[in-house]
Amino acid sequence: MSGEDAPAQQQNAEEQKPQQQDGESKSESPKTENKPEATPAEPVAAAAAASGEAAATAAAPADKPAEEDTFSYRALVLTGYGGYDKVKLQVKKGKPALKSGEVMVRIKACGLNFADLMARQGLYDRLPSPPVTPGMECSGIIEAVGEDVTDRKVGDKVLVLNRSGLWQEVAVVPTSHTFPMPEGMGFEEAAALPVNYITAYMMLFDFGHLRPNQSVLIHMAAGGVGIAATQLCKTVKDVTIFGTASASKHEVISEGGVTHPIDYRTRDYVEEVRKINPKGVDIVLDPLGGSDTHKGYNLLKPMGKLISYGAANMLSGQKKNLFAVAKTWYQQFSIHTLSLCQSNRAVCGFHLGYLDSELVVDVMNALLELYQQGKIKPRIDSTYHLEQVGDAMRRMQERGNVGKIILTTEPMKEEPKKEEAKKDEKKEDKKKEDKKKEDKKKEEAKKEEKKEEKKKEEAKKEEKKAEEKKAEEKKVEEKKVEEKKEEAKKEEN
Amino acid sequence: MSGEDAPAQQQNAEEQKPQQQDGESKSESPKTENKPEATPAEPVAAAAAASGEAAATAAAPADKPAEEDTFSYRALVLTGYGGYDKVKLQVKKGKPALKSGEVMVRIKACGLNFADLMARQGLYDRLPSPPVTPGMECSGIIEAVGEDVTDRKVGDKVLVLNRSGLWQEVAVVPTSHTFPMPEGMGFEEAAALPVNYITAYMMLFDFGHLRPNQSVLIHMAAGGVGIAATQLCKTVKDVTIFGTASASKHEVISEGGVTHPIDYRTRDYVEEVRKINPKGVDIVLDPLGGSDTHKGYNLLKPMGKLISYGAANMLSGQKKNLFAVAKTWYQQFSIHTLSLCQSNRAVCGFHLGYLDSELVVDVMNALLELYQQGKIKPRIDSTYHLEQVGDAMRRMQERGNVGKIILTTEPMKEEPKKEEAKKDEKKEDKKKEDKKKEDKKKEEAKKEEKKEEKKKEEAKKEEKKAEEKKAEEKKVEEKKVEEKKEEAKKEEN
Repeated sequence: MSGEDAPAQQQNAEEQKPQQQDGESKSESPKTENKPEATPAEPVAAAAAASGEAAATAAAPADKPAEEDTFSYRALVLTGYGGYDKVKLQVKKGKPALKSGEVMVRIKACGLNFADLMARQGLYDRLPSPPVTPGMECSGIIEAVGEDVTDRKVGDKVLVLNRSGLWQEVAVVPTSHTFPMPEGMGFEEAAALPVNYITAYMMLFDFGHLRPNQSVLIHMAAGGVGIAATQLCKTVKDVTIFGTASASKHEVISEGGVTHPIDYRTRDYVEEVRKINPKGVDIVLDPLGGSDTHKGYNLLKPMGKLISYGAANMLSGQKKNLFAVAKTWYQQFSIHTLSLCQSNRAVCGFHLGYLDSELVVDVMNALLELYQQGKIKPRIDSTYHLEQVGDAMRRMQERGNVGKIILTTEPMKEEPKKEEAKKDEKKEDKKKEDKKKEDKKKEEAKKEEKKEEKKKEEAKKEEKKAEEKKAEEKKVEEKKVEEKKEEAKKEEN
Repeated sequence: MSGEDAPAQQQNAEEQKPQQQDGESKSESPKTENKPEATPAEPVAAAAAASGEAAATAAAPADKPAEEDTFSYRALVLTGYGGYDKVKLQVKKGKPALKSGEVMVRIKACGLNFADLMARQGLYDRLPSPPVTPGMECSGIIEAVGEDVTDRKVGDKVLVLNRSGLWQEVAVVPTSHTFPMPEGMGFEEAAALPVNYITAYMMLFDFGHLRPNQSVLIHMAAGGVGIAATQLCKTVKDVTIFGTASASKHEVISEGGVTHPIDYRTRDYVEEVRKINPKGVDIVLDPLGGSDTHKGYNLLKPMGKLISYGAANMLSGQKKNLFAVAKTWYQQFSIHTLSLCQSNRAVCGFHLGYLDSELVVDVMNALLELYQQGKIKPRIDSTYHLEQVGDAMRRMQERGNVGKIILTTEPMKEEPKKEEAKKDEKKEDKKKEDKKKEDKKKEEAKKEEKKEEKKKEEAKKEEKKAEEKKAEEKKVEEKKVEEKKEEAKKEEN
């Protein structure tokens, strides 16, 4: 697919008007204004990349003004906070301007992350206000480079990590946000790697300082970060991995390296861990927040580290669920340093979205090295077209996935029986199968919904208990203070 | 000095009666009851160790019953919570019983720690109730081994780490709490190593995961942990060390490896750090607590770790200062996981006293290896006799020391001009010099006291500011929640 073909495939595009992006983050939202002034940031090389995954050969720019007039590309745009339908497929027109140090990428595949779901509900403050194109990671081919860019050239295949703006066919990003794809890596794999693996790596090896013979509790072990974390744990000798996931996913995560899969829907994971490791675990990776953070903290051995990296418990339903948000907020874990000292524990918080990008360069390079050594390999759960982003988000939110959910910029075929569609047909078949599987999973999900409701009731009970416990602890503390005062009085007398 | 000589040197011993120790921790308080029952824990080898630091040759036990009747040893005993005078020198009579897996150590030197000061004021709950012998670390010679002890033998020089009970001439401890002293290590050095170096090591290398090119803020850089941490930082390439200490100690800590000494009495250390490292530091070691923890947290770079390991700010004056305790308690740092996530930071708590001893074995071995490589070397600030424990504690509390304060079990000479006292004389001279230095430092300390008062006033002001800030933050948060609710309402409409 070359840039020129794009306008021909605007199926399902809901709006044809170019969107005016707010100017805050120029690198993230390509401008549609056609150069009102001659900036020094004029692209020094702008060429349509060769189509598909074939080796890129930079074609000479033909009839430049005409191309710029006709340049357009499809983009997903969050039009407002709310349900799945708030992310719409639109067409942006005009070639994005390139500043010094930036590159223009023809995007092939994009990764879906929990933060994207939070963002859609208005729960993630790192995404600029709507209308805005979401998307923090993608893979693609460099189509043009700005001035002073020496380390990337047109035709390079790259992974991209950005604050937002990558769920579209073309994006302009600082060159430092791109990383060359290793030999043999596919675009979908490449789009699945950055966010999940950087997150898992920094949590386990920087905050967690994971060492041989230690034990780790991984929540949502079948999710993107869960599978990345499992693979990274396996690079350290004799690490015991407890992984929570619904029963249907246990076979896959066991094969992936989870030592003890736990069905959190039918079992109390705290009890299950204690049965096997009475003293608890060395590291807890906690994407859930709320009451689960308390449970995780209490599962820590001395010198143990709890690493919180999200509040998935806030997500309940398509739209912002104020009850779930308030409950997770209310139950969020808070700790005093004196208590930490007495238990010799650490509480860490991680969120890649709030991290300076320069810090991840070394980590990304280490990960690409591990990939080339065959020690890590992203697992793709399913691939959706941009038009299907709603289904993709639903699958993630309903925890249907095992591994990464990918959006491909490849256009959907309206009529599957074209001349050169044989190759595509196979892909379509696979998609259909995936769909079937998904439907089955949805049914399962419905069954589990009932279980979930029961769980929620239990959670409410638990919440009440926790409140009672808090009140009691407060009393005990007050009593202690009283006692100390009395003691002091005695001593003074 | 052999065990038999001890009773002859009971100068300043305030009470001659043996103390009945509470039975809770047998390994810590040697029993004085003379074996009312034949336990299987009868010592299998009990022999007076050869005197002094000479090579130990086990003498055959002579006239056993008589020896056990006359066996006595001097011990420091905390008789109640309060000022320096609450720690009294007493004589315990009767040979302590040895159980299987235990050893009896003839103690040569003991280390003084902040926890001992806290304990005396009743602020450290890991010390059993008075009367009790304090002391968490010492060095000495094994004088007897219990049944099943195969890894230690009579005459072995050892470092000892225990929950309490080591500020005396003889102690019985589990063999697992002893570590062989490396060749060439003196008893004072050995007594100075365990608590400070294990603490610094586990904080920097386990919680902190210190790596090349990082930066560390070390409070009380001239204290025992401060000097240990500085030396350990120097084992990692290109680590920048910010160290707080009063100006008179800057030369020494600079020589020791502190890159940027900061006089916390005359400067705002936060400003000083920011001047040099505008982005802050990677690790803060915080022994202070209270408002300093907040400052330290705010100085952290992304992926930074704050490691709290005490609440020295609670110590103000000889006796428990309820105002200082309450203020430190009130101002103690508390953090929500969501805030941690948004700043990508870790908050850790460490206190060796609350840590399972089995966890420190590997660390201790790593430290002894570093010692033998010449990479670490405890710095002795001063050595006091057991009789001078009050002066020793005062020196520590008033922050007069540069390095470790040691208690020696060597008896004080009443008349300095004895026949064989020449060697001792030199030591005495050194002591006198030390005393002079100390007096000078005390004068300095007085001067600084005034400064301190000024500082306290400032602290009060700051406290008020902090309260106001807190109140304001709360308002902002409430407002945010309100706004979100309204947003949600709008969306639902």
